[in-house]
Formats: sequence, C-alpha cells, structure tokens
Amino acid sequence: MLSGKRRLGRGIAVVGAGMSRFGAFKDKASRDLFVDAFVDMQKSVDKGLDITDIQSIFVGNFSSDLFEGQGHLAPMMAEWVGLNPCPATRVEDACASGGVALRQGVLAIASGLYDVVLVGGVEKMTNLPTERVTDALAAASDVLYEASAGFTFPGLYAAMATAYMDKYGLGTEPFMHVAIKNHKNGGLNPKAQFNTSLKDLLEARKVRARDRGQPVPEWKTEMDFLNDPAANPLVAWPMRLFDCSPITDGAACLLLVAEEIAGNFTDRPLRLIGSGQGSDSSLLTRPDITTIGSARVAARQAYEMAGVASSDIKIAEVHDCFTIAELIATEDLGFFAPGEGAKAALEGRTARDGERPINTSGGLKSKGHPVGASGVGQVVEIWHQMRGEAGDRQLRDRDINLALAHNVGGTGNTCVVHIFERR
Amino acid sequence: MLSGKRRLGRGIAVVGAGMSRFGAFKDKASRDLFVDAFVDMQKSVDKGLDITDIQSIFVGNFSSDLFEGQGHLAPMMAEWVGLNPCPATRVEDACASGGVALRQGVLAIASGLYDVVLVGGVEKMTNLPTERVTDALAAASDVLYEASAGFTFPGLYAAMATAYMDKYGLGTEPFMHVAIKNHKNGGLNPKAQFNTSLKDLLEARKVRARDRGQPVPEWKTEMDFLNDPAANPLVAWPMRLFDCSPITDGAACLLLVAEEIAGNFTDRPLRLIGSGQGSDSSLLTRPDITTIGSARVAARQAYEMAGVASSDIKIAEVHDCFTIAELIATEDLGFFAPGEGAKAALEGRTARDGERPINTSGGLKSKGHPVGASGVGQVVEIWHQMRGEAGDRQLRDRDINLALAHNVGGTGNTCVVHIFERR
Repeated sequence: MLSGKRRLGRGIAVVGAGMSRFGAFKDKASRDLFVDAFVDMQKSVDKGLDITDIQSIFVGNFSSDLFEGQGHLAPMMAEWVGLNPCPATRVEDACASGGVALRQGVLAIASGLYDVVLVGGVEKMTNLPTERVTDALAAASDVLYEASAGFTFPGLYAAMATAYMDKYGLGTEPFMHVAIKNHKNGGLNPKAQFNTSLKDLLEARKVRARDRGQPVPEWKTEMDFLNDPAANPLVAWPMRLFDCSPITDGAACLLLVAEEIAGNFTDRPLRLIGSGQGSDSSLLTRPDITTIGSARVAARQAYEMAGVASSDIKIAEVHDCFTIAELIATEDLGFFAPGEGAKAALEGRTARDGERPINTSGGLKSKGHPVGASGVGQVVEIWHQMRGEAGDRQLRDRDINLALAHNVGGTGNTCVVHIFERR
Repeated sequence: MLSGKRRLGRGIAVVGAGMSRFGAFKDKASRDLFVDAFVDMQKSVDKGLDITDIQSIFVGNFSSDLFEGQGHLAPMMAEWVGLNPCPATRVEDACASGGVALRQGVLAIASGLYDVVLVGGVEKMTNLPTERVTDALAAASDVLYEASAGFTFPGLYAAMATAYMDKYGLGTEPFMHVAIKNHKNGGLNPKAQFNTSLKDLLEARKVRARDRGQPVPEWKTEMDFLNDPAANPLVAWPMRLFDCSPITDGAACLLLVAEEIAGNFTDRPLRLIGSGQGSDSSLLTRPDITTIGSARVAARQAYEMAGVASSDIKIAEVHDCFTIAELIATEDLGFFAPGEGAKAALEGRTARDGERPINTSGGLKSKGHPVGASGVGQVVEIWHQMRGEAGDRQLRDRDINLALAHNVGGTGNTCVVHIFERR
C-alpha cells in the first residue's frame, strides 16, 4: 500500500487565487461564474498573468449534468476564459470535486509535464427547485442502498449526528455553536452567501416583524433564535435549518505552478506541501459513523508528506456541509480527541480568537456550498489569510505559517486534505 | 505554451487489461460491469495481481448521473472491487472520459506519488429509453448553442459529414465502407456488442424473412443492404443507422505501473510512450468542421513525446462514434492527407489486411460505445493485438511494435491520444 511518506517529484506553489461571489444568481450559468472566478484569480497574481502561460486546466464539478443539463464542462470553461486548446479535464468526487481537482493539478505539475496549471471549481445549483436539488445531491450517496431507502443528505448526516450525540452523551448545543461561529465569520466575508452573523440576522428579523406590525420575537441570544422552531425548523432531527449549508451558485480558481518558477508570478507564494486523499464505503456499511475513515487516511498522508503534525496547523478550512461534519472533521484531522470536537466548539476554541480558528471564511455553512467549487474556495480563504489580505476577517497577532483544507465528498466516500506553508 | 517535447518524470507500463462484454445488460448496473472488467483485468496479469498493491484509482465515466441517477462513482467502484481506502477519482470529458482517465493515471505515476494505478472506464446506458439516452448524450454538446438549437449528436456529426462531402466532392460510400469494415472486425470479437459482420447479418435477415414467409430482400452485398432505407434508415442525413455507434453498457480496466517495476507483473508489458490531450470550442464556432483541432494538438503532443511519426504507427483504435468520425480521425492523426481518409477507406487500406489496420476490435461502431469506457476499451484491444492474444482477429505476419489510441469527447471539444510500444 501507499506510504504517505512518498514525495512528489517537484515542489508546488499557489501563486493566484480568486472566486466569484457565492450566492443565488438567477442570470448566471456555470460559465459566467467560472469567468468571474478566473478574472478574480488573474487580478490576484502579483506580477501579472499572461493566460497563454497556462498549460492545463482541471475543473471540479459535481453535476452540471443534473443541475444544468450540461456535461463536458471542462473544455467549455477553457473556451470561456480563452484557454483552448489547453487540455481541460473535469474531476468529480461529489462535494470533494474541487479538492480532488486541486490534487490532479498537483500531480500534473509533479509529473514534469506541466509548469503552470489552472485549477477551478464550479457549481450552478439554484436553477432547480429545492426538492430537485436535494434529489440531485442524493446522487452523491449510494443510490442502491441509501437514496433508494429514503435517505437524502440531511438524513445521512443526521444519522451521523445522532450516533455522535449518543456515543458522547451530548445534546444539540455543540451543533448550534458551530452555526453561530460560522455565520459570525461569514458576516465578515463580503463574498459569502450569508454575509450576516446570526446576531445581526435575529435583530433584523425583529425589526422586520415590528415594521410589519407582527408580534416581535423575544430572542435575546443566537441560542434563543436557534432553539425557536419557527426560526430554525427541523430538517432531519437533530439537524435543523441552520445546521445545513445552503444551496449555492459559485466558482473559484487557483493558479498552481512548479515551485522553481513561482517567483515569475509573485514574491509571496504559498507552498503546497501536503496532499492526501482517501475513499470509503457507503455510510450504512461502516462500523463507526462518528468518524470518517477517508478523512483520517487523507490527513495522515498529507501530514506525512508535509512533515508536520496536526498541532502545527494554525488555521483550517474544513468541510462543514452540516454542523456535525465540522465537529467530526476537527477530530479526524487530529485537532481534538474523539468526542472533544464538540467541547472545543462549545468553549470557543475554534472561533477567530480561539486557539485554532476553523472556517474563518464562514465555511460552507455561511460562505455557501456550490458543491464542486467548495474545495477550491477553501484554498482561496487560506490564500487571503496566509498573505494577510483577508480584510475585516483577517486574523491578527498570529503567524499563519501553516494552514489546512479538508474537503469531503458524500458522507465521506471521498476525502481530500491539503496543507499549505508560507515562509 | 506547453512544448509537446516535455517528458514525463518516469516511464509508464501497462501490465494488465480487461473488459466486460459490451452490450445491453438489463440486470447489470455500473458496479457490476466494473467488477466484470476488473476481474478480467486481474486474470490478464501474467504474474498475478495482489489487489492491495493498487494505490490509486481513476474512473472514466460520462454521466452515471443522468443514466443511473448515481454520481460519485469512483469510490463506489473502489468499494465493489475491494480497494477502499485508495484514492478514487472520477474523470469526465464526455466520450473521452476513459482516455482522459488513462492520462490521469499516467500523470499520477509520473508524479512519483504512486507506482501502481488502476484505470477504469464504465457506462451503463440502456436503463433509459433511446430518446432519453439521446438527450443525456446531448449534454456533452454546448447546451446553450447546440442542444438548445435542436442539435443532437447524430445531427452534429451529420453536419461534419456534409461539410466533408462538400469539401472533397464525395458521396456516402466512404462512410458505408467504414461500417462494413468495422462490423467485419467486430464479427471476430466475442466481446463486441454486434459480434456479426454485415454480410452475416444480411444473410440472417434473409433467412428470417424466408422463415416468416415474408418477401426476401434482394441484397447481394453489404452495399445493397446499407443502401436499402428499410434496412438502414436515415437518422440525420447523411448519417444512417449503420453510421452510428450503438447505445451500450460496458466497462474496461487497465493496470498501469511505473516502468521499473513492470517486471513484477509481467515479462511482456506495453510501454506507454506518448500522451497528448487538447480541447476545442463548440462545433458551431469552429472555422473548419472537416477536421478536429483538439485531435491534431493531442496527436502532435503524443508523437513528440513518443519520438515517433504517424507513419511508424502499425495499428490504431480511433474514435468512430459515427463513420465520418473515423475518416476525420485517420486524417487528424496524420495517417492520410486531408480528404484522403475517405479514399483510403474505399480502397481497404484501413482493413485488417490493409497497410494500416484501424479499429481491429470493431471500433465503437461494432464493438459498442459505453461512452465513459470506450477510451479504456480501445487500449484493451491494443493490449491483445500487441501481445498476440487477439484470437480470431489477431493480426499476423506483421510486427505490431507501435500502436495508438484516439479518444474524442463531444464533437472534439476534447481529444486524447496515447501511443504504446512493445519491444
């Protein structure tokens, strides 16, 4: 079997990163979102980018087939940003498509064949009514055993949440703390779909009720708001509306180059020093659903390749498609012991001012989750934070020299982890 | 821009190849077909394969999303052949998905990260009624400009065929010669969907008519048969039924390893010495639709990497999704000058006993076209022919030391070319 200690043939650097706004954009197709992200990425390249330098493109996308009736997306994205006849390859591993596309970009440069690679992710989800989006997403489960048995994704993650609560004797408070934190972070991110903290949201709702002459809710805290079934209805117990990431349109792009030529693009590149990927069976045949095996495999590979420990990581963007997923992620990545992720969330240890900030972008929960783009979007946040360019949400008074991105597909049938270093 | 002369960081060898039967299999899903192909591949490894040696999987698939309502296919295929937690990645470039998956396997080994990689392709198409398959395939066109204007794939290739006929002053005879040749080859391939030559088919139809007391058709030759609108109805002029590849279920697998360890698996590996990939815009915005630009780019890259000329290639499996596509392919690959592909077909120069046998397997036309598997299936034929194990269709009295596979996505929005050497 693969030793995680294997090294890539060449060093890899990230020298540009950009994204579209995440949200619901009636008038934009995948190609429009991708162009937005590409232009934003191009602007981020300190010394400028001549697009004819780009030699290959990898596009993460879950299912424009089901969302837009459009397959074969990669050469189309190449066409719209002017990159034909570059090789253009779509990569799909459900909601991990973006992270896995990044990994293909890494392998492509390490192979010696390319020096400059564009990695993108895109998903246009809001064309369809919500129930059809839910059906499309259910195609990322095992249709034979899971979707056909009535499971949709909120139900699958609810099963993980109930198992987690049962195993560690917990209520739903830890999930709510994840939602509060991530919406607070997203409130500082102008590209987030929900660019509002829950505190601001509940106050705005009170004002709206007052303006309409309706009874004004008595919420004092975010917890009051989240515990009110009228404000935060059940989706699949114990997952409520604010435990679920939204349906999102969006795209993100990264420019990856061989490390030896990074200086042609910027004097402040990020080094990509660790990459790991694992797979797992469908949820219903796993011995323990309070942890994700593929994430543990991917993390171990990435740490070993990077030669760092989980305790060295300063910030992480993790795959919080549901609030339970963030708790499990922080344990699978080794930040906290099994069962301790919940305690850490309750104690604010993963907040922006905590010991290990998680999802400073707002995460999938608040920034939005255009599924094929999410894994690439995570690295856009890491790019900004590591370079000190994250605006109002920039972490200060700490040296963010190591960061991690954790991207999950399905219920963990795929997980991919990348580690970045800034010197 | 990329110089085609770039070399991979390591040598790559093919040490195993297998496929399911291609056809229409009511009771088989993608996972069943993939298992069939995997088992067949495993049996082909001369010194045996311990599956725990496999380190990563790439799966080509166009759209199980649309065909089976099942996305996230790669980790599921890994699960069914017992390969979790190996990284499992789906690759999609429409009908070039299989060839592009092969290319990702090549890059993955060349990167230094892996030594042993499984490359598979799979498509399960016959669940849906034909008109819905046609719609699903149309998602591989540019839906905004092509499908929405009423084009389906027979129409798009018919446009290429009419342009070709017009440019070179030809009728439809060359297309028919391609059909006759490929069905003749497929008649020798027990895994082909249509395992019957047109000669045998027309005789069988006469017998059937006689047995039923119906008027017996007066066909004497395959051309009589193909020119009879009752036997060979128009689909989109000038493409008739027997100009179109069928709707097919099937899967194929290859075992790729770093060249230095090939001897652990077989003493008769194939070396993969050239790989090229290109992209192109949608058909309707190209200056000339009698050639495929991405194929010319991919071929040039592959020839340059391999250090061989088109004239050195002994056999080729080319992407004959429609008969016109084979003619254009043989020109884009440099086997014949523009417009000469038709003449070569008419003269039998691409037949099994011709100077340059094309599609000895029967091609997509007769062997079948499970779209995401086709590019991998092409290499299975090359594996058998180069090793002298192609049974009744084995080419004799010639040294097949160099072979080529040409796999197209859409109308040429993607093309990928690979070159193999046997020493």
